[in-house]
Amino acid sequence: MQKDTGSGGPSTPRLRRRKGSNEVPPELDKANGGRLLVNDRNKYKSMLIRAYSSVWMIGGFALIIYMGHLYIWAMVVVIQIFMAKELFILLRKSHEDKHLPGFKHLNWHFFFTAMLFVYGRILSQRLVNTVTTDKFLYKLVGRFIKYHMVTCYFLYIAGFMWFILALKKKMYKYQFGQYAWTHMILIVVFTQSSFTVANIFEGIFWFLLPASLIVINDIAAYIFGFFFGKTPLIKLSPKKTWEGFIGASVTTMISAFVLAYYLGRFQWLTCPRKDLSTGWLHCDPGPLFKPEYFALPEWLPGWFPWREISIMPVQWHALCLGLFASIIAPFGGFFASGFKRAFKIKDFGDSIPGHGGITDRMDCQMVMAVFAYIYHQSFIVPQSLSIEMIMDQILMNLPFEEQQTLYMKLGQSIMERQYGES
Amino acid sequence: MQKDTGSGGPSTPRLRRRKGSNEVPPELDKANGGRLLVNDRNKYKSMLIRAYSSVWMIGGFALIIYMGHLYIWAMVVVIQIFMAKELFILLRKSHEDKHLPGFKHLNWHFFFTAMLFVYGRILSQRLVNTVTTDKFLYKLVGRFIKYHMVTCYFLYIAGFMWFILALKKKMYKYQFGQYAWTHMILIVVFTQSSFTVANIFEGIFWFLLPASLIVINDIAAYIFGFFFGKTPLIKLSPKKTWEGFIGASVTTMISAFVLAYYLGRFQWLTCPRKDLSTGWLHCDPGPLFKPEYFALPEWLPGWFPWREISIMPVQWHALCLGLFASIIAPFGGFFASGFKRAFKIKDFGDSIPGHGGITDRMDCQMVMAVFAYIYHQSFIVPQSLSIEMIMDQILMNLPFEEQQTLYMKLGQSIMERQYGES
Repeated sequence: MQKDTGSGGPSTPRLRRRKGSNEVPPELDKANGGRLLVNDRNKYKSMLIRAYSSVWMIGGFALIIYMGHLYIWAMVVVIQIFMAKELFILLRKSHEDKHLPGFKHLNWHFFFTAMLFVYGRILSQRLVNTVTTDKFLYKLVGRFIKYHMVTCYFLYIAGFMWFILALKKKMYKYQFGQYAWTHMILIVVFTQSSFTVANIFEGIFWFLLPASLIVINDIAAYIFGFFFGKTPLIKLSPKKTWEGFIGASVTTMISAFVLAYYLGRFQWLTCPRKDLSTGWLHCDPGPLFKPEYFALPEWLPGWFPWREISIMPVQWHALCLGLFASIIAPFGGFFASGFKRAFKIKDFGDSIPGHGGITDRMDCQMVMAVFAYIYHQSFIVPQSLSIEMIMDQILMNLPFEEQQTLYMKLGQSIMERQYGES
Repeated sequence: MQKDTGSGGPSTPRLRRRKGSNEVPPELDKANGGRLLVNDRNKYKSMLIRAYSSVWMIGGFALIIYMGHLYIWAMVVVIQIFMAKELFILLRKSHEDKHLPGFKHLNWHFFFTAMLFVYGRILSQRLVNTVTTDKFLYKLVGRFIKYHMVTCYFLYIAGFMWFILALKKKMYKYQFGQYAWTHMILIVVFTQSSFTVANIFEGIFWFLLPASLIVINDIAAYIFGFFFGKTPLIKLSPKKTWEGFIGASVTTMISAFVLAYYLGRFQWLTCPRKDLSTGWLHCDPGPLFKPEYFALPEWLPGWFPWREISIMPVQWHALCLGLFASIIAPFGGFFASGFKRAFKIKDFGDSIPGHGGITDRMDCQMVMAVFAYIYHQSFIVPQSLSIEMIMDQILMNLPFEEQQTLYMKLGQSIMERQYGES
């Protein structure tokens, strides 16, 4: 990758020619001193379009956050459907599809099967908690959850058999290509982005903070690159510069630390949602969100307004998220760029003016969603939730008699331990 | 698929020409009365070779079953590595690889990351149970399990970044193709076959019965097809006939019912293995493996030796497995055939004389392994194991004080329910 830095040119013009020139990105132009492009007006026009749709997106996003977990989930589902649509179309060839009536619906069969599987898994516990008042519904939902895996499996197998029976002479390669492509989309795009939903119900905080950090990092990289961009960062994305990358990293780390403090004060954001209602949330947000006070050093001048600062423990976790969002998540963007290069496309779609397709905007978000989920599961959950989770499991999965048996066994085990240690 | 049955011919000769003719399968030859091929000697020679290596495989397999869970696991791992090797080589182009030093090792990085992840998940509980006597090891293993997900995630991310940094101009398409191919192998081949390992530790029965049924079905289909094969079943695999398919189905169903009875009598096969030792197993195998006696009708003639028959409940479950093994699992084979057609290869490899590569023999096994796992989880586990599983979870995951809290909470919940119901 390092060896042939000089040959980065040839592919750029080819890509630019395909664009239809309604957007010219702040690319590097060494002949012009590395800062400004020849057609400067276009550069600013493009920035305006991009800023305009960014403001709309952020506004809509804030409204949805205010409306609550179910609406955020709905938003994620809509985004996922749009992304799948963009990507399914990408490698489809209408010439081949003409000979394969109905074959293109198979993608969606797999997509909705995956959706039922993933969301069933994530939300089953909440669904149970939502319907506990109605005995009949409770039993129905219990049954649904019990056979959830086997149902999804048979839906998948049905798609698998459909695929095999739809195989048609001379189209094998195209069809297997489509099958592999569908699966890649379901894993790389759908499954990854679904982790987001698990985060949402653990507390909007764990969805909002990572997602915001990616947005902040993107915008900061764009602005720093726009004004100071000189040194190319990676050949895959000629728009990206070291100046943008470093400036964005610093901005993101600071934002993470500050943002966590402000977001962490709202119970609406920090409480986990344990059912599927949209009502108000009250909870003890736990030690992570309790400010701790640190005295500032004595030698600070007298006019300095603060004697101590308050920091929530969650802010240190936010720094880890910020670090990931600014250093590793951008690789999601590089991956997408490389992919677009490989298949000679400019954008995955054209849904958002100035941004390209939805998938173009989500590349880093997906990497971040998985990290946020795993980080939360590994470093946050063990400190707070486990007793309640096990209680839920017992109350849901075991019939009453077995709960009593378990109670006795646990009592025995505790007795033995106490006896053994004393 | 149904429309152009007549045009099935053209592709067969092309494939046959590529074979190097060391094996001629019992293909249909309508001009010869549908039963015999022109070069009959080759047909029998090929059958002998195939029978010879089948006997060796079955013998070795029986020995490994006798040696126990850890050895079966080791066998699965070896098979998985061989399959991965066969498949990684398949779409690799040495011309392209010359320009990408080190790139081909990336496959194996992903492979071993997947291995660590999957087996860590399946076996962590057993690992804990194995080391409970040593306090230090216990803590170490507990820590490993706690950070298992995050470790695997970072290994994966490392591979992901390696991939992006290894992207090289003009090779993008080849490299993204390799990336997608690696992931497809990891999902379709590795993850699917790993379900087998979960089955093994639930009781060898749940691994041995499904695997045997596939072998029985394959052999029966081969024999019935060999002697009675006339009507082509599916164009994808010209070797397969309706006669073979139906004969094999009946054979498999009967074998499933009979085999389950004999396998179900050995505790070595029915007991779950809860640690990673190789010692002898004793357990109450549960109601599924307790024979129930059914009186035969009175009108049976006096010379008929039996007045009643004994049936284990697990035999009815075995029928379901048999049904799947004979009706749906063969689609795994069709899929593999179609894939080989699409990419114009005869076999995935040449490890087993007369059979082709290991992957060729495993295609249906993988489909079956997933089904057996899901069937066991959905229909068998809920009847027997849940109390113990939750106890394990409590004893492993909660510190002692929290176990006490949980005990109190559970007691409260039981009290409330008893009070509410009376």
